[in-house]
Amino acid sequence: MSVNLRNKVAVIGGGLIRFGELYDKSFGDMMSEAYLNCLDSIDKGIDPKEINAAWYGTVRGPATGSIAGTLLGLGGIPITRIENACATGSDTFRNACFAVAAGLYDVALVVGCEKMLDRPGGLIGLDRSGPRYFDMFALTMPSAFGVYGTRHMHVFGTERKHFAMIAVKNHYYGKMNPLSHFRREITVEQVLDAPIISWPMGLYDCCPVTDGAAAVIICREELTTKYTDSPVYVLGSGLAVQPTRLGLRNDFTSMMPAVWAAQQAYKMGKVGPDDIDFAEVHDCFTCTELIQYEDLGFCKKGEAKTFVENQEMYIGGKHPVNVSGGLKSHGHPIGTTGVAQIVELFWQLRNEAGGSPKGAGGLAVSDPSGKRQIPNAEIGLQQNIGGAGPQVSCINILSNKKR
Amino acid sequence: MSVNLRNKVAVIGGGLIRFGELYDKSFGDMMSEAYLNCLDSIDKGIDPKEINAAWYGTVRGPATGSIAGTLLGLGGIPITRIENACATGSDTFRNACFAVAAGLYDVALVVGCEKMLDRPGGLIGLDRSGPRYFDMFALTMPSAFGVYGTRHMHVFGTERKHFAMIAVKNHYYGKMNPLSHFRREITVEQVLDAPIISWPMGLYDCCPVTDGAAAVIICREELTTKYTDSPVYVLGSGLAVQPTRLGLRNDFTSMMPAVWAAQQAYKMGKVGPDDIDFAEVHDCFTCTELIQYEDLGFCKKGEAKTFVENQEMYIGGKHPVNVSGGLKSHGHPIGTTGVAQIVELFWQLRNEAGGSPKGAGGLAVSDPSGKRQIPNAEIGLQQNIGGAGPQVSCINILSNKKR
Repeated sequence: MSVNLRNKVAVIGGGLIRFGELYDKSFGDMMSEAYLNCLDSIDKGIDPKEINAAWYGTVRGPATGSIAGTLLGLGGIPITRIENACATGSDTFRNACFAVAAGLYDVALVVGCEKMLDRPGGLIGLDRSGPRYFDMFALTMPSAFGVYGTRHMHVFGTERKHFAMIAVKNHYYGKMNPLSHFRREITVEQVLDAPIISWPMGLYDCCPVTDGAAAVIICREELTTKYTDSPVYVLGSGLAVQPTRLGLRNDFTSMMPAVWAAQQAYKMGKVGPDDIDFAEVHDCFTCTELIQYEDLGFCKKGEAKTFVENQEMYIGGKHPVNVSGGLKSHGHPIGTTGVAQIVELFWQLRNEAGGSPKGAGGLAVSDPSGKRQIPNAEIGLQQNIGGAGPQVSCINILSNKKR
Repeated sequence: MSVNLRNKVAVIGGGLIRFGELYDKSFGDMMSEAYLNCLDSIDKGIDPKEINAAWYGTVRGPATGSIAGTLLGLGGIPITRIENACATGSDTFRNACFAVAAGLYDVALVVGCEKMLDRPGGLIGLDRSGPRYFDMFALTMPSAFGVYGTRHMHVFGTERKHFAMIAVKNHYYGKMNPLSHFRREITVEQVLDAPIISWPMGLYDCCPVTDGAAAVIICREELTTKYTDSPVYVLGSGLAVQPTRLGLRNDFTSMMPAVWAAQQAYKMGKVGPDDIDFAEVHDCFTCTELIQYEDLGFCKKGEAKTFVENQEMYIGGKHPVNVSGGLKSHGHPIGTTGVAQIVELFWQLRNEAGGSPKGAGGLAVSDPSGKRQIPNAEIGLQQNIGGAGPQVSCINILSNKKR
């Protein structure tokens, strides 16, 4: 199989809105704001008419590309909607890259939007995510992911404090990021003392329910100089699914879709885990992030607890992870999250994450300390994993240089 | 903008199940049956392990690629779910083609599945299709499309009998097709005398609510000989959206997304309407099919009534349309429909529609007369249009020769 997305597609703009409980904004308000921020972020400017096609990711929002087009004032162009559980945002980006890499379009918009809080049901309608068909009755998301945490503790001696240290780290960075949903630090003791939601996940091990929107604009790599002198290139991409029935699995210490998607993305990008300067990883629960350290190859299998104890996932460590604040603190508006991670990569790879990049709508993305910027970052990875229990994972690897 | 999907992707297999009120089959039963029929249809055989990736289209089914993978026994590969209203099936096919054309995958599966009848609500949940955001309160699908029929009658003197003649034609062919939901002929008088659903659309002007599934397998064109000596090539593809607010439109005699998508597809395929030997057109309502004759360029604007009176849309006429029976008689399981149209094109272009192609699961697709096969068909077009009022249209053009 030939694999040639590599170096063919560039991100030229990224826009994000402040995440949170956005009762004061409609779905259209949120999406338009992210889109307009994204247009503003393009260094040499862009006329919206130059956008040839769009891909739109949402799980709970209006179901079709035409409605996204209406909300954004884009008509006459192709707009496809993608939905793939919590990997919706990154898979939306991925499909847009395919069409641009195939030469179909010069410039494409990728937009993710999710209004989680002012709709009945609160969380994603689980009836369409699995239980109608499978063995998940009575399973909630914390329990579907928690079984992995429990097993990892049993097999490798991981403790709840290791999960807690991840929550502490993500709040530490989230506090620095003015776009975050939660902006306060927490302690390991607070995490351990919080009420248990589903063992071993306590309240502070779980990401919040967040509203948010994000947008990026990509183009064929030959055209980048028209728009910016600092493009960010797509190196690799991977997506894999695993059959959903938990009872058929014989290992709960790895999340196999992530392992498989990482293999694909590393192979396509001709890079390995050691080349990854930083990552935005899907920390829907702290145990998810911990296990992903191993699944993505940032440390050896079973050694995540040491990785955590040595603070290798902080800036200055081997593999800084979720210095945006992650899903845990920055927030997790489902279909938006992957696109927002790509915007964070875009800013980090352009050395803009310590200040006020244009795509942030006039806000800073670091507090005045500016310590969120990873020094000399050249390659970043973003990853989503979703489904009730890990069932799909999508990974994209970006770099500020062609490789 | 370069446009190079043309001649790069080939359909090598197509599978369909008998459409209807399939209360006796689960969603997984239907999808698996279409998939297995599709595997059977590949002349030189295929190992499912050769499928590198899949795209899955549904509007009301389980929401993610991972569940489709579970139902089909496909794990470890990328599976993306697409939803784009009634254009879901054809847009699912289109996105799979992008990835194959970009060289990412050798072989990809495209599957559409929709269970319309045994779920609460009956039809698609309109809350996610528009009215929450727009001016469509109290509009139903027959009324949203019916306004186009009314306007066409007013401007061009089209009469209800012309719409009726389309229903008669589609039932005429649908009766011949053992895979159809409805298998009986009707008369113009019956159509005109039936209860009005929303003027000018009566009961027999509206397509039924149907369960069904369809699957096709595509590959990079260089690899076709491994699988078949009779591949069908993708020539062109187009997709366009129109803002959804009906009140902002100044013309209801054309469905602009179809006009725009056709322009894209013809340009990419380097063909024009006169080159189209036959078409599967989105006849959700008879007025939709009639207006599409003009929008797709099969006749001049305003002349569809003459086109209909001269039976140019029958086999033997200029542009045979919906000789499968169309949505009206063959059925319209929303996310399946576009994929099913591609299977019909596959059979017609391989001269198999008069008999029992392998992808039909042992059934014939023509009654013993075999008159459904279009003689010497070389280029076929399939088209979907969707949304509450035409808001998105997707078109794919296929041929049994590279051009």
